Amino acid sequence: MITGIIGATGYAGAELVRLLSVHPKVDKMLLCSVSFEGKGIDDVYPNFLGRISGALLKAEDVIADSDVVFAGLPHGVGEPYARTCMDKGIHYIDLSADFRFDDDEATFKAWYGKSYAHPELHKISIYGLPELNRNRIKELAARGSVIIGNPGCYPTCASLGVFPALAKGLSLENSTIIVDSASGITGGGREPSRSFHYPECADSITPYKVGEHRHTPEIARNFDAISALGGHKAPSLIFTPHLAPMNRGILSTIYIPLSEAWRLPPGADPKAIRPPSKDIEAKTAAIRDLYTDFYKNEPFVRVLPAGLFAATNRVRQSNYCHISVHLDQSGSTLIVTSALDNMVKGAAGQAVQNMNVVFGIDEKSGLETIPALF
Amino acid sequence: MITGIIGATGYAGAELVRLLSVHPKVDKMLLCSVSFEGKGIDDVYPNFLGRISGALLKAEDVIADSDVVFAGLPHGVGEPYARTCMDKGIHYIDLSADFRFDDDEATFKAWYGKSYAHPELHKISIYGLPELNRNRIKELAARGSVIIGNPGCYPTCASLGVFPALAKGLSLENSTIIVDSASGITGGGREPSRSFHYPECADSITPYKVGEHRHTPEIARNFDAISALGGHKAPSLIFTPHLAPMNRGILSTIYIPLSEAWRLPPGADPKAIRPPSKDIEAKTAAIRDLYTDFYKNEPFVRVLPAGLFAATNRVRQSNYCHISVHLDQSGSTLIVTSALDNMVKGAAGQAVQNMNVVFGIDEKSGLETIPALF
Amino acid sequence: MITGIIGATGYAGAELVRLLSVHPKVDKMLLCSVSFEGKGIDDVYPNFLGRISGALLKAEDVIADSDVVFAGLPHGVGEPYARTCMDKGIHYIDLSADFRFDDDEATFKAWYGKSYAHPELHKISIYGLPELNRNRIKELAARGSVIIGNPGCYPTCASLGVFPALAKGLSLENSTIIVDSASGITGGGREPSRSFHYPECADSITPYKVGEHRHTPEIARNFDAISALGGHKAPSLIFTPHLAPMNRGILSTIYIPLSEAWRLPPGADPKAIRPPSKDIEAKTAAIRDLYTDFYKNEPFVRVLPAGLFAATNRVRQSNYCHISVHLDQSGSTLIVTSALDNMVKGAAGQAVQNMNVVFGIDEKSGLETIPALF
Amino acid sequence: MITGIIGATGYAGAELVRLLSVHPKVDKMLLCSVSFEGKGIDDVYPNFLGRISGALLKAEDVIADSDVVFAGLPHGVGEPYARTCMDKGIHYIDLSADFRFDDDEATFKAWYGKSYAHPELHKISIYGLPELNRNRIKELAARGSVIIGNPGCYPTCASLGVFPALAKGLSLENSTIIVDSASGITGGGREPSRSFHYPECADSITPYKVGEHRHTPEIARNFDAISALGGHKAPSLIFTPHLAPMNRGILSTIYIPLSEAWRLPPGADPKAIRPPSKDIEAKTAAIRDLYTDFYKNEPFVRVLPAGLFAATNRVRQSNYCHISVHLDQSGSTLIVTSALDNMVKGAAGQAVQNMNVVFGIDEKSGLETIPALF
Repeated sequence: MITGIIGATGYAGAELVRLLSVHPKVDKMLLCSVSFEGKGIDDVYPNFLGRISGALLKAEDVIADSDVVFAGLPHGVGEPYARTCMDKGIHYIDLSADFRFDDDEATFKAWYGKSYAHPELHKISIYGLPELNRNRIKELAARGSVIIGNPGCYPTCASLGVFPALAKGLSLENSTIIVDSASGITGGGREPSRSFHYPECADSITPYKVGEHRHTPEIARNFDAISALGGHKAPSLIFTPHLAPMNRGILSTIYIPLSEAWRLPPGADPKAIRPPSKDIEAKTAAIRDLYTDFYKNEPFVRVLPAGLFAATNRVRQSNYCHISVHLDQSGSTLIVTSALDNMVKGAAGQAVQNMNVVFGIDEKSGLETIPALF
Repeated sequence: MITGIIGATGYAGAELVRLLSVHPKVDKMLLCSVSFEGKGIDDVYPNFLGRISGALLKAEDVIADSDVVFAGLPHGVGEPYARTCMDKGIHYIDLSADFRFDDDEATFKAWYGKSYAHPELHKISIYGLPELNRNRIKELAARGSVIIGNPGCYPTCASLGVFPALAKGLSLENSTIIVDSASGITGGGREPSRSFHYPECADSITPYKVGEHRHTPEIARNFDAISALGGHKAPSLIFTPHLAPMNRGILSTIYIPLSEAWRLPPGADPKAIRPPSKDIEAKTAAIRDLYTDFYKNEPFVRVLPAGLFAATNRVRQSNYCHISVHLDQSGSTLIVTSALDNMVKGAAGQAVQNMNVVFGIDEKSGLETIPALF
Repeated sequence: MITGIIGATGYAGAELVRLLSVHPKVDKMLLCSVSFEGKGIDDVYPNFLGRISGALLKAEDVIADSDVVFAGLPHGVGEPYARTCMDKGIHYIDLSADFRFDDDEATFKAWYGKSYAHPELHKISIYGLPELNRNRIKELAARGSVIIGNPGCYPTCASLGVFPALAKGLSLENSTIIVDSASGITGGGREPSRSFHYPECADSITPYKVGEHRHTPEIARNFDAISALGGHKAPSLIFTPHLAPMNRGILSTIYIPLSEAWRLPPGADPKAIRPPSKDIEAKTAAIRDLYTDFYKNEPFVRVLPAGLFAATNRVRQSNYCHISVHLDQSGSTLIVTSALDNMVKGAAGQAVQNMNVVFGIDEKSGLETIPALF
Repeated sequence: MITGIIGATGYAGAELVRLLSVHPKVDKMLLCSVSFEGKGIDDVYPNFLGRISGALLKAEDVIADSDVVFAGLPHGVGEPYARTCMDKGIHYIDLSADFRFDDDEATFKAWYGKSYAHPELHKISIYGLPELNRNRIKELAARGSVIIGNPGCYPTCASLGVFPALAKGLSLENSTIIVDSASGITGGGREPSRSFHYPECADSITPYKVGEHRHTPEIARNFDAISALGGHKAPSLIFTPHLAPMNRGILSTIYIPLSEAWRLPPGADPKAIRPPSKDIEAKTAAIRDLYTDFYKNEPFVRVLPAGLFAATNRVRQSNYCHISVHLDQSGSTLIVTSALDNMVKGAAGQAVQNMNVVFGIDEKSGLETIPALF
């Protein structure tokens, strides 16, 4: 298989290059970078020296010879490439937000400030979260070339943490789910700026874009979608991102108010704050079982056993998402912690996973990295 | 003034030593450490070399000559020292949890597993959060020697972030406030352990003790106290701590459901997720003004102007707490971010502030450090 | 092939587990840990969850069924296992210092404080630096089971940086080579201690064991060995290790006084300090060519092109060693910078490389990880 | 006293603002920033909120009313300000390299690429390393306004580490001193760039500008100066800087070949590499005493007792320089480790120290910060 990568020198693009270069089904990579055309990828990333030496080409030369094209570009510039790929019968996997909202142009425009250049493409594209849309992706691929909108990093982490609860109707009607997330600094991309200048962000944690991060509508849409599959209605959403002083990883701590059926009955003194009881442990175990069962066939989602919390260093450089489930001390709110590597399951790894689904090969191909703790 | 410090070689104790050594009203420090008795504090902390060279004495020798005694000890061992201090008419400021729960022995026992050795002391002790109890501390000190239970780090950060909202009745009745916090690793103290071993916690973030952290009842009690002062009833509490890869600092992101009076009316489509409107900005400004007014006389609490978020590096090594207020995109939940230095306003600095209140000296004495960004 | 790992839960052991678990020739791993016998490796390292679940066995059960046994043990305890392996005809690769000094018991005893329990084993063991001893290892393996003393992390980094210069006689006679190195904190192992407690080592750099680190005689011995191969005499050695606030990696900056033949002639004013001239560039290029040629067949050593410096993040998690060569501004001293991952080429990766050499399989097997920059 | 700061929003400028704002003799600060004119310093540095709120003015308005002007500007632009200050009789302290080379325009031009705009100023300016030039600064200040070239960060660290050895003639004639240094990333200043982008430099160490860093001639000049004072001749110099993943601090490890009189006689087997003997300890103690004596009156230089190494976290945020002395295992080379905070003793703190010297006030004024370990 020949894979083309447009925007190969951004962080997500380069991670894709790294993953695809050892993918057993990839025969060749063609790389494009507007900023570094004519150079080699190993000039830009000397960590690739002696292993990946592809010259950085023009986009048209990349597309011409590829079986699948990945685009790691800024938001709002990918549609023409998608159009070309469709015309040529080439699969197209877009890592930007351009194809994450299907034909809901209003939402895309409200949050990203741009209209669709090719509205027709958004009627045939599909949101590439395999845990949600695997079968639909396969169906589309069986019929011809596909456009995949690769999910955002935060939405992947939040969605996987919440899906079982919403699909199975655990959440309280008309309540609000709070997703509180922290991301490593690679999430900000390769372009230097004050926010990501080492002395300004090292050894410190801070929230940003509170109440207004662009991933909010994407997460909410996913919550609606999974709820609908289960015949339920999704709660509202609050999403708060933070910047943590680490290279990779997203950790989401998610608060899901439980429905009457799932919450513990209030004690004699509902205001009493007491350490967790055996009842809490038992209820938590039941929900953990439900989560474990929900993901039993998923190759990359692991529900952690009791006593463990999701931690970003345990999924480092891998395509895994680790999830742990807990209850608050009153037994009324489900607290889920979810961790993934923002560059892998949150970007490039998920794109490879989508490619594997599209081509009908083992979904784990090229994604077998076992996380190192450090 | 002569200040005694028992437990001077723990992190909180050593920070106290550092602060008191430049306090304008402190004439002498007497230091005690069981582990290092006979050594100098600069043997244990070579960063003090040439500046602080106090020998580490026995507790009794420290107490005998002190006007005020600080205890930076593990939980459950401080009461005998407090008893001695009261007998001798010496003020006693305890940095452990031993005196944080007043005479609520049931809660203390439920969470810390120990009974009170001297229940009578807990009837006269006071919780030393100056922003809550300043006047009461002054009154007690006017009458004789006092026992102060210096607050926990997380409870200080959470309480300061929430106090104006609860005092002014902004929160929805019967709702739940969620406090999601991240702490630097000095919060775990000086004793080496797997959790705080560099390779296990660097470059990674993880939650811990979800639904069962000991600071939960302390935070809840503070919420009740401030609500009662305003004639309101506090919501329930969920508190989740995280360990972030940084030395100092706590950041709390706090979710407070707003009462009907304070929330924005739902739009035509309550489920629509849209970027923040002018209405949101206006309502946020009103709440920011309320917060600013609430803290207008507080020397160490700063409500940030619009556009800024609390960040731990902006309060580094200082006694300040930075607070920013925001709304979620629907205008129904107040989101507060609150940051402080866990070793200063979260421990040693607050203890010094309490000492200043007790002795009736300028509350800012010895706490004038201006935070460096790095 | 069945590989046994004794000491599988130490950092080097666990890294070995991670590498071998995806090695194409390894059919099965048998793991031993005294501390965690009866548990699973994924209980100890939850990052392995769902991927590596081997039970931790007794050493004898591991050895009995293995084709090769790795030992990631403290210094001074491996010899009985080596004896057993030899008796059973099993290859033995020791990651401690026990077999790094051949039959030079005096040096081992002087620095490690222990005598050899089985002196006869040290007459047949071999120091496993493939770039030095590859052919000898192959010869020994052709004759039967072998004992390999896997090199230390610092010695590997220093030796690879210096070998071409010494083999080709670039160094000044009777001079001193200075190896100034910084290591990530995983180099200190898994056992918590004050030195590696996060708040004590984060955001700070410090030297340690100046003039007395145990890797000094190992480095010196390697310098002698490579010099002897080229018919030269090695300079003296000074080695200084530092602890840097990072997880993985060693960077060595090495100062090699050049012989008359290789140094630039002094200018008119030998004391004038001036920016590098064209002469310096030309001479540097010549030495870079010599280095590049020396390593042209080595799969894991890369001599960097002009303009690049060795950096630990460019070899992260890989078995590569990156080397750059420079001259000081006077042209009289060769300055080499050398970087590797202390857990891979500095420990577990090199052990796998040795296994590959021993079994005559592709030396790169199982070691194909392409470094990610972060 | 009124202090003016030109370039107040750079990292060195802002650190100066922070230090001077609590200096007991400073009545007022006037701040200038071309980039942020019209804003407040607390708009640019929100860590100053509520404490330092000076408006950012034009340079001429700052100079007009100041008793002393500090310039934290890029190299090559400060001379006109110095000229104006001299004309008005105002002291001028320049933190750039512009006045570090006295009237040696050739060296300045060779390394910084610029000629002197006002050569006459360089005849009256003085290099502001108080440990070298304190008396001369006082003499000049007694006669009128002075221009001080505040030293570079690396040169301060290296010079203090080497001065006693050179002043007392410990070094071998015609030998080479190697200064191997690592700096925190604030050393690169406030401007975002690829090299200081968090993901590119976190968790990694790398050398840079090997054999060609601009601080080389400044260090060499200082070595010459101190040697000349002692009637000795300085060895040659090799200087290698590294970038370490930390905010603040410089650590220098310095190798000084000892003269016959100071080195240990070679043992029977000069090549034998053995752990340090009692002879080594005794000789080291003698040199440590010499160092301690040399600095006995210096307020900011501490020679560490046996068993301690310089570490950047032990001088954090302070004006101290910590120095430890060691010998290599053969007793022929003195190894000095020297640590300081690059933003304080390496920049702003030293500038304040120079101001104190110039005004004849206690040299420690405003510089009393006791380092926190973290």
